[in-house]
Amino acid sequence: MSSATQLFAQHPHAWEVLQPLARRRQLSRDEMLLHHGDAATQLWLVESGWVKLTRHTPDGKETIVGLCTAGDVLGEAALFPYASYPYDAETISDDAVLLGFPAETLRTLLQKDAALSASVMELLNQRVSQTQLKLEHMSTLTAAQRLGCFLLRLCHAHEGAANLKIPVEKHVLAAYLGMKPETLSRSQQQLKAVGVEVNGHGVKVNQIANLREFVCGSCSESGSCDVEMALDE
Amino acid sequence: MSSATQLFAQHPHAWEVLQPLARRRQLSRDEMLLHHGDAATQLWLVESGWVKLTRHTPDGKETIVGLCTAGDVLGEAALFPYASYPYDAETISDDAVLLGFPAETLRTLLQKDAALSASVMELLNQRVSQTQLKLEHMSTLTAAQRLGCFLLRLCHAHEGAANLKIPVEKHVLAAYLGMKPETLSRSQQQLKAVGVEVNGHGVKVNQIANLREFVCGSCSESGSCDVEMALDE
Repeated sequence: MSSATQLFAQHPHAWEVLQPLARRRQLSRDEMLLHHGDAATQLWLVESGWVKLTRHTPDGKETIVGLCTAGDVLGEAALFPYASYPYDAETISDDAVLLGFPAETLRTLLQKDAALSASVMELLNQRVSQTQLKLEHMSTLTAAQRLGCFLLRLCHAHEGAANLKIPVEKHVLAAYLGMKPETLSRSQQQLKAVGVEVNGHGVKVNQIANLREFVCGSCSESGSCDVEMALDE
Repeated sequence: MSSATQLFAQHPHAWEVLQPLARRRQLSRDEMLLHHGDAATQLWLVESGWVKLTRHTPDGKETIVGLCTAGDVLGEAALFPYASYPYDAETISDDAVLLGFPAETLRTLLQKDAALSASVMELLNQRVSQTQLKLEHMSTLTAAQRLGCFLLRLCHAHEGAANLKIPVEKHVLAAYLGMKPETLSRSQQQLKAVGVEVNGHGVKVNQIANLREFVCGSCSESGSCDVEMALDE
C-alpha cells in the first residue's frame, strides 16, 4: 500500500487521532520488525530506509513478497480483528525509520468514518492490482524487462535521462524480481542495448523513453500504469 | 473475491436492497461479459459455470489472471468511483449464469454501512493474500506442485480420496498455472508417484493427504491456507 502519506493527507481528522499514538522505531540494517504469524497489533508506515517482506516455506526457501520504502505501509493485517502478519518484515538498509499505529484505534476510526473506509478500500484494491500485475510480469516479461520495469519505477520524478542508485543489495533485487543472481547480471548486460548502463549499484538511463518502449510494449497496463503516470506528470 | 455468498449472508439488509436490482445474465461458452478498460458499472457474482479473467499485452500475449466459478465475485472495480475493469471476462463453460449489481447502489450502501465496508475490506485483503501466494508459488513450487495445489482446491469437501473433474480446458488450465501445455502433461505424469491419476479431464486422487504433503511442504502458507482449512472442516 504505497501513497500512505496521501491517505493521511486526505483524512486530517484521522491523522490528528493517530499521530500522537504513533510509535517511532529507528532500526539498523538486518533488524526484524514483524514476524510472520504474530498477532497484527500495529500498522506500520515507512518514513525512511528499506524493508523487505519475506515468507519462508517449510522446506527452507525464502520468497520476497515486497520491498517497502518511504511512504509505503506494511502490516495491513492490523486493519482486521484477530489477524496475523502474513510475512516477516526486516530492514535492509542502515537508516530505517518506521511509525507504528495501534490496530484497535485504527479499526475504531474505520467504523466511524465511511470516507476513510472508502480510501482504505481503494488502497487495498490498488494492492490487488499491483500484485496481479507482478504475477502477469512473471509470465509475460523477460528477466531484462522485469529489471527494466523496476528501474522505471526508480525513474519516477526524472525526465529524459536519469542517474539512479539501486537501493538494495543485488541478491535481494534478484530474488524480488524472481530470478537468479546470474540472470540479473545477464539482464543488466542486455539493457545496454536500450541505453541503460549499470555499474555496481549505479545506473545511468540515457533515454527513459527507450527503456519504457522496451518494457511497456509487453505489459497489459501499458498506457495506464502508475509508473508511466508518475513519469508523465 | 470468493465466498461472496457469505458476504451477503452476513449483511441481509444490503442483500434486501441489492437483490431486486440484480441483473441476471445467462451466457453460452466464449461470450464476453466485461472488456478491459470499460467503465466499471456493475459488480458480478457467478451463480454457476466458469469465467476466465484475462489481460492482453500490446505485443499479443494473453495472461489469465483469474478463473471464477459459483460464489466468486468479479469486477470489484465497481466498488470505486470512476474505475474501469482491469481485465476481460469471458465465459469458458456452456452454462454460465451471473448476477450483476449496480455500482452506484453498492457504493451508497458502503457509505452508510460501516460493517459492510469492513467485510468488503476483509475480502479485498483476502484477494491480496491469494494473489501474493500465487506469486510465491510461481517461484517456489514446481509445475507439478502448482497443478497439485489446483487439484487440492478441487478436493474441497472431499475426505480421504476424491474423484474430480478438471472443469476447464487443459490449455486454459496450463496458462492459468503459468506453464506450457506440454509442461502440464509432464506434471500429470509426475503426480502419479503421489497417487494422482489423470485421464482426460477425470482425476482420481487416491490419498488427499499424500498430495497435500507433496504440495504444501513447499508453501509458506502450510498449515493455515484456505485449501487446507476447507479440507479439515
